[in-house]
Amino acid sequence: MATLADYSPEVRAEVKQVREQVATLHEQLIKWNLVVWTAGNVSQRLRSADLMVIKPSGVRYDFLTPQSMVVTDLEGNVVDGLEAPSSDTASHAYIYRHMPNVYGVVHTHSTYATAWAATGKEIPCGLTMMGDEFGGPVPVGPFELIGSEQIGKGVVETLERYPHSPAVLMRNHGPFTIGKDAEDAVKAAAMTEEVAHTMWAASQLGKIIELDPDDIDKLNDRYQNVYGQH
Amino acid sequence: MATLADYSPEVRAEVKQVREQVATLHEQLIKWNLVVWTAGNVSQRLRSADLMVIKPSGVRYDFLTPQSMVVTDLEGNVVDGLEAPSSDTASHAYIYRHMPNVYGVVHTHSTYATAWAATGKEIPCGLTMMGDEFGGPVPVGPFELIGSEQIGKGVVETLERYPHSPAVLMRNHGPFTIGKDAEDAVKAAAMTEEVAHTMWAASQLGKIIELDPDDIDKLNDRYQNVYGQH
Amino acid sequence: MATLADYSPEVRAEVKQVREQVATLHEQLIKWNLVVWTAGNVSQRLRSADLMVIKPSGVRYDFLTPQSMVVTDLEGNVVDGLEAPSSDTASHAYIYRHMPNVYGVVHTHSTYATAWAATGKEIPCGLTMMGDEFGGPVPVGPFELIGSEQIGKGVVETLERYPHSPAVLMRNHGPFTIGKDAEDAVKAAAMTEEVAHTMWAASQLGKIIELDPDDIDKLNDRYQNVYGQH
Amino acid sequence: MATLADYSPEVRAEVKQVREQVATLHEQLIKWNLVVWTAGNVSQRLRSADLMVIKPSGVRYDFLTPQSMVVTDLEGNVVDGLEAPSSDTASHAYIYRHMPNVYGVVHTHSTYATAWAATGKEIPCGLTMMGDEFGGPVPVGPFELIGSEQIGKGVVETLERYPHSPAVLMRNHGPFTIGKDAEDAVKAAAMTEEVAHTMWAASQLGKIIELDPDDIDKLNDRYQNVYGQH
Repeated sequence: MATLADYSPEVRAEVKQVREQVATLHEQLIKWNLVVWTAGNVSQRLRSADLMVIKPSGVRYDFLTPQSMVVTDLEGNVVDGLEAPSSDTASHAYIYRHMPNVYGVVHTHSTYATAWAATGKEIPCGLTMMGDEFGGPVPVGPFELIGSEQIGKGVVETLERYPHSPAVLMRNHGPFTIGKDAEDAVKAAAMTEEVAHTMWAASQLGKIIELDPDDIDKLNDRYQNVYGQH
Repeated sequence: MATLADYSPEVRAEVKQVREQVATLHEQLIKWNLVVWTAGNVSQRLRSADLMVIKPSGVRYDFLTPQSMVVTDLEGNVVDGLEAPSSDTASHAYIYRHMPNVYGVVHTHSTYATAWAATGKEIPCGLTMMGDEFGGPVPVGPFELIGSEQIGKGVVETLERYPHSPAVLMRNHGPFTIGKDAEDAVKAAAMTEEVAHTMWAASQLGKIIELDPDDIDKLNDRYQNVYGQH
Repeated sequence: MATLADYSPEVRAEVKQVREQVATLHEQLIKWNLVVWTAGNVSQRLRSADLMVIKPSGVRYDFLTPQSMVVTDLEGNVVDGLEAPSSDTASHAYIYRHMPNVYGVVHTHSTYATAWAATGKEIPCGLTMMGDEFGGPVPVGPFELIGSEQIGKGVVETLERYPHSPAVLMRNHGPFTIGKDAEDAVKAAAMTEEVAHTMWAASQLGKIIELDPDDIDKLNDRYQNVYGQH
Repeated sequence: MATLADYSPEVRAEVKQVREQVATLHEQLIKWNLVVWTAGNVSQRLRSADLMVIKPSGVRYDFLTPQSMVVTDLEGNVVDGLEAPSSDTASHAYIYRHMPNVYGVVHTHSTYATAWAATGKEIPCGLTMMGDEFGGPVPVGPFELIGSEQIGKGVVETLERYPHSPAVLMRNHGPFTIGKDAEDAVKAAAMTEEVAHTMWAASQLGKIIELDPDDIDKLNDRYQNVYGQH
């Protein structure tokens, strides 16, 4: 089995940096109320090698440090780390192997996103923010047991049908989000919970006005290509 | 194109002060749970020149500093700043050009206000706090795509019909609020979310008792003319 | 008009102490999410003179200091203070004049308590915590305009019919709570919002099981006479 | 009556350590929004003697210190402490006497768990997280008055019928949770509120998809035997 010592100094430097980033991003999960206790995880794929950095399994957020983050290869085998990796490691690895532009994956059980998941209903697109971020409804993926790569397979297959969405609500489970790095996937997790909460509240008031598909496309195109600092 | 160096020392001093105020007020959006990640913006018009200060586009709240705030003219052209201005800049500028007493504008996607917006329903006036602050229901404005001044036009036209309200719920989008300065508009954003949440919860319990229009007028008159420190 | 200099050193010492207590207790309103911006107020009656200390009108919580707290007599006339007192001052004073065991009054617009108030429905007693703290349902008081002592009169008349409750939901307005001092009234305000939220959520699940009146009496008697440190 | 001085240095050392742990864990109840004011309590049984450490009655969380924690025997008699113990002491003691593997007990009135309790409905199992943590629905226990060991008896009898659940929703009252130590029981309290909130929200969207009992068993078995650091 490979160890970190087998990798170049460049890779080891990126591992150090990504461990700090991934550890710090878990604080954002707490800040935006996306997780309770240990129930959520962030990973980031490296640029310099086929490796990823992921949260250890079942460790309280107060005790997460860069050094406690686990390094695995893209089959989920541990390359460096004192702790066992997240029980979702095989699914994160599956996503990275099958979606070459994805370098960040986040999983939470955030309250309202998970509520939609428990009913198997996708979140209808009734907000300009959803047009921007998701390019349509937030889709539901299949029910899968935890511990194998089946969840990752369900995420990938669902996103093939919803190519503009960075999020899948795994049925009876919770949201998985992707991004161009871990921070981008954390942002998608925060936005998923926000639109899940807002559309949930709207659904209690009466009939939601869904956006016209043409308007959704215009919003999504502008947001993905114009918004932000370029 | 004008630059800040073309303006008088008095204007440059006000720019410095307003940049600090606008940057600081974004913390209040977080404090009162009105925004997630980068989704919201505050601007303030200057007293000493036809300029405004607005949040940069797509920058995380943790990284907002006074210097990162962008200065534009009232057509939305950048006069000073290292970052691109908010994608809502043209709409803020439209509001300042057409409402000469308005010196602060805020836009959020706060959860419950946006839920009402997703159904196209105005918030009925069932609270003395609404009589005080809004002088009646909180109105809904038209659906508009993001990026042009159309949103600002929708805000202005809606407020012409609801002259006591400092807030408009833009349909399928979220609230815009105005004030005599940016702090006043931030307060209106916080109150909009609070009454949206309260009236949403009331609507789930059964029939809301709406206030008598005469009582609303009395509340609004007292609040706008007597309340606070004079 | 009397000024603080007309009072004995003992009274002036109590004023100083109570100003600190009342200023500090406003932080608890924020901590327990009972108020937004300036929308809430705490007062405490003095033991050593017929005076009370109350929040100034329309001042942001960040800027409340002991010295900004206003001292009035029990008719609401200002005896000491640089700011105008809360617009609810006449109602606080009315309560103190008519309820001689009450030395603390709190008013908030906390979200779920105010939602019940907007429908005119009392909160049914379905929790042991309600038996403990309220001795039954949380009652609704009449609708009254703001600014006179009419609200205080409505609070007193409602509590005559609900002698075990420290809280009244003023219709279309929000909760007023009383206590043996300001801290006790703040606690009642926090418990009012908590039971309002819980019973609101329960009402959405289906039929609430209301407590038997005999059990409510047993809970209330034990809690008021045995609980806590004696 | 025994006092702490009658116990060995080993026991007194464990008392000191457990007092610190129990005091610190009350902060977690606040952090995860499980309690308001003084309404909740944590206890832990000692390993070195038939003693437990529990919160004092009716003391505000800001003022809880290790030294204020009360030491009692497993009949609830005070062995050391300056304050009266929690009014739920007899029930905590009952649980420890009848469940020899339990070394931590927590009681809260957390909002959504208590809402389910007010309707007498168990929380249906529609989440993988519930399969993991609870092995099925979260059960409801009987209505009992406060102050005797009857609540503890209701908890124990309910858990005999739901052997995988660490939580019971006492009807019209609130959740009690158990664990292998106090931290484990606090975690169960946090997870109980989270699944109560999520399943409550799901119930408002329409039909919940409940998990297949075989899948629940697989989830629970993996989680209890594989998850975390071993």
